[in-house]
Amino acid sequence: MKKLINATDDVLTEALRGFAAAHDDIVRLSLDPKFVARKAPRKGKVALISGGGSGHEPMHAGFVGVGMLDAACPGEVFTSPTPDQMLAAAEAVDGGAGVLWIVKNYAGDVMNFEMAAEMFAGESATVLTNDDVAVESSLHSQGRRGVAATVIVEKIVGAAAERGDDLAACKALGDRIAAASGTMGLALTSCTVPAAGTPTFTLGEGEIEMGVGIHGEPGRRREALRAADALVADMLGAIVEEIKPAKGAPALLLVNGMGGTPLMELYLMLDAARRRCAALGIEVARTLVGNFCTSLEMQGCSFTLTKLDAETTTLWDALVHTAALRKGP
Amino acid sequence: MKKLINATDDVLTEALRGFAAAHDDIVRLSLDPKFVARKAPRKGKVALISGGGSGHEPMHAGFVGVGMLDAACPGEVFTSPTPDQMLAAAEAVDGGAGVLWIVKNYAGDVMNFEMAAEMFAGESATVLTNDDVAVESSLHSQGRRGVAATVIVEKIVGAAAERGDDLAACKALGDRIAAASGTMGLALTSCTVPAAGTPTFTLGEGEIEMGVGIHGEPGRRREALRAADALVADMLGAIVEEIKPAKGAPALLLVNGMGGTPLMELYLMLDAARRRCAALGIEVARTLVGNFCTSLEMQGCSFTLTKLDAETTTLWDALVHTAALRKGP
Repeated sequence: MKKLINATDDVLTEALRGFAAAHDDIVRLSLDPKFVARKAPRKGKVALISGGGSGHEPMHAGFVGVGMLDAACPGEVFTSPTPDQMLAAAEAVDGGAGVLWIVKNYAGDVMNFEMAAEMFAGESATVLTNDDVAVESSLHSQGRRGVAATVIVEKIVGAAAERGDDLAACKALGDRIAAASGTMGLALTSCTVPAAGTPTFTLGEGEIEMGVGIHGEPGRRREALRAADALVADMLGAIVEEIKPAKGAPALLLVNGMGGTPLMELYLMLDAARRRCAALGIEVARTLVGNFCTSLEMQGCSFTLTKLDAETTTLWDALVHTAALRKGP
Repeated sequence: MKKLINATDDVLTEALRGFAAAHDDIVRLSLDPKFVARKAPRKGKVALISGGGSGHEPMHAGFVGVGMLDAACPGEVFTSPTPDQMLAAAEAVDGGAGVLWIVKNYAGDVMNFEMAAEMFAGESATVLTNDDVAVESSLHSQGRRGVAATVIVEKIVGAAAERGDDLAACKALGDRIAAASGTMGLALTSCTVPAAGTPTFTLGEGEIEMGVGIHGEPGRRREALRAADALVADMLGAIVEEIKPAKGAPALLLVNGMGGTPLMELYLMLDAARRRCAALGIEVARTLVGNFCTSLEMQGCSFTLTKLDAETTTLWDALVHTAALRKGP
């Protein structure tokens, strides 16, 4: 295992300390229990809290700040955070208007966020993301996995909370964005969890995992690497089959790197995807390209399509000021 | 070779098209000859133009925009752009106050930018970056290589040009930042140039290249991978020996990913570097962490230290709006 680390037990703490030092204008860090909170929480605003296993950086701590999350709870690498982290985060950022938990659909996360919601004295609601169209159930999930669309839910609902939408409205909006989104990914290489020390899975030379999960879970099939255009056609085809966008309707297209893929290839994949969307009659109204929901050093990428309307487009464009996503005047 | 591409000959064009589509609010693209220009050039402002081989994304096109570069000229992967690209870019963005070429010290880039300067009818000056303290001369350079400090030069001089500094002042400031900066990198893995199809170099299991160049050029030595803290001590030690910061003086610390390293490890390296800087009596007044000057999918990172003063700190903090770097109110 080749990683820039000290002891494997200290990876999360040291990475969080570095993150908090780099972005001390935006966030503050609690190490016991571990959570990252918006530096200046707003009274009277619905507080958005997400979290999940680490190793997907910048998700979720990179999305804490104005116009997105109020707190993020990082677990160990590819391991759910615990309810005490979620409860402490909620108590720290609750502005009196309730807490919206944004949870990726994995058994551990779902269970622990449910426990936190029961322990939390304030009002709360949950949005579950399950955008990965690759497989119906998987190693760690009943039903589809929650992956990169979580970033889009966090951004759009974050903007709604910032403008003053109440908890019920934020929950309904989150559910609506989640249902309007589909994601399909592929891996060229595996990743290695520090505490495991060996690659999570193995691919042959010239072989890819089509539909890979963000923890290296199996997808639809192993296949030979093909030209970008052919891969893109299959990936977008799988998404479109699920979310069924109307002809000519606007969509947001997220080209997400898995962590180890050069930006040059991600932009090339965007170019290919735009051509394919044009052929499919999808209007790519907004795009986002980069490493947002990663799998450590895995090479590969995912596409997410989210059907947009006038309201969600406005909320997507609204000001956001976080470590990993920044927009606005 | 596992890459998300179509034909190797089309990689650059397709990646540039994707980049321009994703950031059409900031840049416009010329494909013949190839350059990326700021969408709204400003009359009366010194125009900053950089460029170099592709494969280092987001450098340089990702830094075109308000408060940084006016144009970037991308060559093929790891290959200098040609003078006709630079000349066309200069003619497109010259606002009447002259052009400042920002050039990384490689023989091909230096020669081609010199030719472009001779062909350009307007006034121009050149800032050469040579911040890589690893080796004195290298495969493609006489004297030290220009690497990640180029991003810092582009940001700080970009802010100066934006506030109205003239060409001579921008050139002097660029030279000053370049001289105040040092960089040292390491590689855990090689990268593969698409047109070559095989890795540029080979490292054994558990072996790293200390002082690697951004094209995979040899550094100071091959050595066994050690704990992050030990690597950081050697890297920062090599920089400090060259730029000799005064005790307690402020510095900017850039932790730069080579393209294939997880963000989690980069933040962990920042944490280690902050501890080491404290021990060395360096005040880390500003930090930047991420993939800025990359080497395709190479795993590894570099540190850059730039000595700051009141003026350069203000310019570093000034508004910037580019695809890859954004700051400001």
